[in-house]
Amino acid sequence: MNPARRAINAEGAPDQIAEFGPDEPLKLDAGYDLSPLRIAYNTYGTLNAEKSNAVLVCHALTGDHFAASPSPVTGKPGWWSSLIGPGLPIDTNRFFVICSNVVGGCMGTTGPASVDPRTGEPYGVTLPVITIRDMVRAQAMLVDRLGIDTLFAVVGGSMGGMQVLQWAVSYPERVFAALPIATGARHSSQNIAFHEVGRQAVMADPDWAGGRYLALGKRPAKGLAVARMAAHVTYLSEAALTRKFGRTLQDRDKLGFGFDADFQIESYLRYQGTTFVDRFDANSYLYMTRAMDYFDIAADYGGSLAEAFRDTTTRFCLVSFTSDWLFPTEENRAVVHALNAAAASVSFVEIETDRGHDAFLLDEPHFYAAVDGFLSSAARARGLQP
Amino acid sequence: MNPARRAINAEGAPDQIAEFGPDEPLKLDAGYDLSPLRIAYNTYGTLNAEKSNAVLVCHALTGDHFAASPSPVTGKPGWWSSLIGPGLPIDTNRFFVICSNVVGGCMGTTGPASVDPRTGEPYGVTLPVITIRDMVRAQAMLVDRLGIDTLFAVVGGSMGGMQVLQWAVSYPERVFAALPIATGARHSSQNIAFHEVGRQAVMADPDWAGGRYLALGKRPAKGLAVARMAAHVTYLSEAALTRKFGRTLQDRDKLGFGFDADFQIESYLRYQGTTFVDRFDANSYLYMTRAMDYFDIAADYGGSLAEAFRDTTTRFCLVSFTSDWLFPTEENRAVVHALNAAAASVSFVEIETDRGHDAFLLDEPHFYAAVDGFLSSAARARGLQP
Repeated sequence: MNPARRAINAEGAPDQIAEFGPDEPLKLDAGYDLSPLRIAYNTYGTLNAEKSNAVLVCHALTGDHFAASPSPVTGKPGWWSSLIGPGLPIDTNRFFVICSNVVGGCMGTTGPASVDPRTGEPYGVTLPVITIRDMVRAQAMLVDRLGIDTLFAVVGGSMGGMQVLQWAVSYPERVFAALPIATGARHSSQNIAFHEVGRQAVMADPDWAGGRYLALGKRPAKGLAVARMAAHVTYLSEAALTRKFGRTLQDRDKLGFGFDADFQIESYLRYQGTTFVDRFDANSYLYMTRAMDYFDIAADYGGSLAEAFRDTTTRFCLVSFTSDWLFPTEENRAVVHALNAAAASVSFVEIETDRGHDAFLLDEPHFYAAVDGFLSSAARARGLQP
Repeated sequence: MNPARRAINAEGAPDQIAEFGPDEPLKLDAGYDLSPLRIAYNTYGTLNAEKSNAVLVCHALTGDHFAASPSPVTGKPGWWSSLIGPGLPIDTNRFFVICSNVVGGCMGTTGPASVDPRTGEPYGVTLPVITIRDMVRAQAMLVDRLGIDTLFAVVGGSMGGMQVLQWAVSYPERVFAALPIATGARHSSQNIAFHEVGRQAVMADPDWAGGRYLALGKRPAKGLAVARMAAHVTYLSEAALTRKFGRTLQDRDKLGFGFDADFQIESYLRYQGTTFVDRFDANSYLYMTRAMDYFDIAADYGGSLAEAFRDTTTRFCLVSFTSDWLFPTEENRAVVHALNAAAASVSFVEIETDRGHDAFLLDEPHFYAAVDGFLSSAARARGLQP
């Protein structure tokens, strides 16, 4: 554990841990029982007496459960701290917000860096492949543990949005409202391709050592940095890159005629790569990308996405961003069409922005207004006190 | 040299070599004289008595001078063999086609794998950074050597298109017709970003050894393969990937729950990566990507692209492809607008296709018709015999 993190935990204990012993294994889609299981999570706000005001927030690929409190690793504010809090769209004066680190992650929940009790060594890539459904199944165990029957809402973007959709399919009766953002019902060929590039970058690093780097005291830092750089380009849009960086040179009046970072975009990307390595586990990166690649809701329903949502009573609001080319509007709209075909209650908001896929993590007023409006309306329907 | 290549050269001598000694150094933008200089090239067709029917074909990032004859390395047909030949749009019954390997390349022209006469070792990254203008300057030396004053046409796609534009700017009086395809007058921030990912992938490989791998008998094969994989995704379109691969699994009935190639797109990409390593030099990859990144015609003309083309008498035809997101139509159109502002003769064709940037290398009938139409019309204007 990162020393800074330990200190913060000792001081403020920002995260909580739910342990599940041998009698409560996590049934994995890969066909294994994962046990013991440890889930790290944070909560914000207060659960009401009826336990009817719980909002589960699902994090994205490299996110964590520090959605609305500072990350003990980076010291930065929670990744949705401008969306979740008192008086904010996900209003902690009103809602009880739960955010857990996903299974396979590296921030406290059981993942490839956890010690396999059978060997006494970190799992590495001997951990079975984790699916989005596995992540959701683990979250359901946590929600059970908290004594909550029905979630008022499940909210998340990107991989978090996949979890929202999976919740609505796996546990339709337990989700009153679902807010999947910048996501899709399956990972596209292009997205799988970019993930495969990232995995190959990690695995090409000799310090990855077949996934056993932790046991050997190594870290595939260079490979993981390259993977992050490649992925990061896909989170932005060409327009945003041109606006923010263009061809502006890095602290130089002219080209350097070498392979150092000449352009600001190069040093920005290198920074994204190196800082990521300080906060994320390389094997977790493999597992998270694989979980997204495997995601394909319709595949479990004979190829029919509408069938997956049949008879749902959950109310949905989908949000996409115009410049998101990783999960373009059409991918989100495909879910809307399936929900329409299933006669579900669904609204859809496309937000005009040039900030690309990353927009779901940024301060986008129209996006925030959409979240606020949908949750407020659903809360009235649910009879929650304003 | 690849043994297969030597054999083919011995049999058919498909490529020719122009050598430039100490009295004819190549003046590089980086401020150095490159000498000796060796240019490998191929020609197709016959130069007429007036020397007025020469078409210079410029290759792209990982291309070579085997435009219309089989590559001695891969054994595959020339990369534009369906465009260049008797009766084809670039008709070798009519035109004398020249295609040379660019400076900095790895197929016979002086590049980082060439031996530095001062050290007796391959240049590696001690070779000065090469620019598109340097490539064009070297081509002009070759054209001089061939005794050709004015080129009937200069044609190329992607990085080849950049060379076409640079020819029209550097030697306007020597270019009768210019056909830049799927290109732009400068490299965008997003494109620099993807190139930087590729370079970092190469340089992250310990076998790159600071660029000295050839002298040490090593090759950064894994890093270069990752770079190629990342780049290859950008050459295609999401629509084409979905059409060709979708989420189709690789010789399996179901998911493998591991990190082997599960999806066809994964094995396709891995194949692209590993086969590229067999035919391309890693340092050349760094130099080619850098040359493209540095390309910005307007920067040499006070930021005005129109100024760069002032008083040009060259006739232009630009071609873009609707699904090309690396050099989208708007980048091509920016060149058209500048040419319009410079009162140049210019036509512009946007080809509807879902095949992405790669379309310029593929059999696209409307594209071929555009090339044919433009060159035929220009040939009439030039008074060339049909």
